[in-house]
Amino acid sequence: MTAHAIDPTAALGPDTTFGEGCVIGAAVTLGRGCRIGHHVVIHDGTRIGDGVRIDDHATLGKLPMRAANSATTKEQELPPLTVGDGCIVGTGVVLYRGAAIEVGVLMADLCTVRENVTVGRKTIVGRGVTIENFCAVGRFCKLESESYLCAYSTLEDRVFIAPGVVTSNDNFVGRTQERFKHFKGVTVRRGGRIGAGSVTLPGVVIGEDALVAAGSVVTRDVPPRTIVIGSPARVWRDVPVEQLLENQGWVDS
Amino acid sequence: MTAHAIDPTAALGPDTTFGEGCVIGAAVTLGRGCRIGHHVVIHDGTRIGDGVRIDDHATLGKLPMRAANSATTKEQELPPLTVGDGCIVGTGVVLYRGAAIEVGVLMADLCTVRENVTVGRKTIVGRGVTIENFCAVGRFCKLESESYLCAYSTLEDRVFIAPGVVTSNDNFVGRTQERFKHFKGVTVRRGGRIGAGSVTLPGVVIGEDALVAAGSVVTRDVPPRTIVIGSPARVWRDVPVEQLLENQGWVDS
Amino acid sequence: MTAHAIDPTAALGPDTTFGEGCVIGAAVTLGRGCRIGHHVVIHDGTRIGDGVRIDDHATLGKLPMRAANSATTKEQELPPLTVGDGCIVGTGVVLYRGAAIEVGVLMADLCTVRENVTVGRKTIVGRGVTIENFCAVGRFCKLESESYLCAYSTLEDRVFIAPGVVTSNDNFVGRTQERFKHFKGVTVRRGGRIGAGSVTLPGVVIGEDALVAAGSVVTRDVPPRTIVIGSPARVWRDVPVEQLLENQGWVDS
Repeated sequence: MTAHAIDPTAALGPDTTFGEGCVIGAAVTLGRGCRIGHHVVIHDGTRIGDGVRIDDHATLGKLPMRAANSATTKEQELPPLTVGDGCIVGTGVVLYRGAAIEVGVLMADLCTVRENVTVGRKTIVGRGVTIENFCAVGRFCKLESESYLCAYSTLEDRVFIAPGVVTSNDNFVGRTQERFKHFKGVTVRRGGRIGAGSVTLPGVVIGEDALVAAGSVVTRDVPPRTIVIGSPARVWRDVPVEQLLENQGWVDS
Repeated sequence: MTAHAIDPTAALGPDTTFGEGCVIGAAVTLGRGCRIGHHVVIHDGTRIGDGVRIDDHATLGKLPMRAANSATTKEQELPPLTVGDGCIVGTGVVLYRGAAIEVGVLMADLCTVRENVTVGRKTIVGRGVTIENFCAVGRFCKLESESYLCAYSTLEDRVFIAPGVVTSNDNFVGRTQERFKHFKGVTVRRGGRIGAGSVTLPGVVIGEDALVAAGSVVTRDVPPRTIVIGSPARVWRDVPVEQLLENQGWVDS
Repeated sequence: MTAHAIDPTAALGPDTTFGEGCVIGAAVTLGRGCRIGHHVVIHDGTRIGDGVRIDDHATLGKLPMRAANSATTKEQELPPLTVGDGCIVGTGVVLYRGAAIEVGVLMADLCTVRENVTVGRKTIVGRGVTIENFCAVGRFCKLESESYLCAYSTLEDRVFIAPGVVTSNDNFVGRTQERFKHFKGVTVRRGGRIGAGSVTLPGVVIGEDALVAAGSVVTRDVPPRTIVIGSPARVWRDVPVEQLLENQGWVDS
């Protein structure tokens, strides 16, 4: 079973290796030195950089599914999926056509990145994470395991989303025509952090370098550099100075 | 690798196409115009309607697993999995033998539907959703991404379950013989809605067209057409008239 | 497509069967009477006992991924993955090299067990569960569907983790160098239980046979044999006598 189904129009870089049973579609480009696992499926037109690791059973460049009953997914022309140099794509990951992944991003096992999404360089997308459509995720972010980023969300750079965080975008909870004008997920400003298992209501803005304590329910905007806690979340105190982003000595490179 | 393993007793409709490396078991029936992805596995006896899309790495008709230590899974004869016309089955989805899926259902990537489950027409089962065994899910429901429906739950028609909702069915939390008589999940009446990240205790009933606000913990039954909020959830106010199901102009067809 | 890619150095026991398209790496050992599904990938050196069931699309013995930006994953030599007699490995499961799974463990669909983890005999790891690296899980535990066990956690024997539980291990939420000295997940003593959708803060200890009520946020240690509830969780009352572990008549065999 060393045979593969590699379309003759695919362009494969030197020193790129394949496991068993891979399927590589038409006009796919793969850079040099990539390491592709077993049973990996890469759909037509996907563009993958140099030195990318893709693990078993991953699916790249998938076309969206349209439900008879969907509120938000429209027919559309999508640009090819792009995956930057040095990215790591885990086992069973699903990446959609119409996503753009910058260099050095880790996408852990069983995560999903939908169409019309950008993910900035060196961000970590944790195990089982979902990034829904129409999201912009910055650089050096961490979305930890099993966190959920709903459609129409924005994470600026250096944002930290802890495990099991749930975000939401529809204040009308699936009712009224009015709701289609207002879908809005979470916005987290540079360096903002959301603690484990917290829930954010539609449209809330987490201010720059602010922190939502674990287990909170965020119903209102969170001021910069403050910690909020509880259900509903209230301001508790300032973020400790030693935890501020500016005091970490991190360089955005 | 264009070879497949299609059992000679499988009945394949006209205009149905297969990706690479599919495995189609004995006595499987597939309707006309289906589009089957790569590395799809369909187990013996599964019955699939017309115009069904099944994406890469999906598994249909899986037999249950029985733990040495399981409290609820018994040996049983299960009818074949049935999947209605026009359904969409996402990447990495797992559907069990003994589930019955009506027409036009969307089962998004990485969701699981267990045995002894019915899912009504045009319902959307979101990304990563689990529907455990012995559940009945109505028509035109939406179970959004990463929500969890425990065993012995019932959703009537037009029910909306937001992302990250967690339900439970065992008030004895795994102790006593007594508990086996009382397993009961959530019951959501027609048009009931549960907001993002909420948790429901065993056996609660969410009344017709009621709404559980995001981040709540539901410990008691929720009256029809009311909104509950908090932990534990208390009645807050009536559902706004413009959000009532009867005012949406929806037709159940 | 009945061809497989079985490395000639793999040692396969009698009466072990394979589905289609399996990939079995170098020096893998498989016991007698195993039942291996379709498209299963078993990486080099993995050691599997007798009578093990492995379902479709599972991946065993995966090597860790190292993010450019990871706080905790170091380069290391890992011992081979070991899977004990009579284990069941569900569809799409991912087990890492460096995990040790004792006999009779059920690992349900789409769960993940990371490197440097031990799982005791007859434990149930539910659907979609994540057990992160550096965890010790005891015998006869149940981690129910979609629960999340963070790195550096310990579950003693007979622990029960309900669906959707989220644990955490970093009180510094990704900031300061100091945090690297303090990563600590949850510790649950023998017979401890955590209810559905609860969240635990870093380092908390759930006492022997204690119970965290569903939907709680646990910020402090929980005394033995007590029930805590709420956000933050407070002591409510003693665990009912009939629910105590010593009154279940269970034998640890």
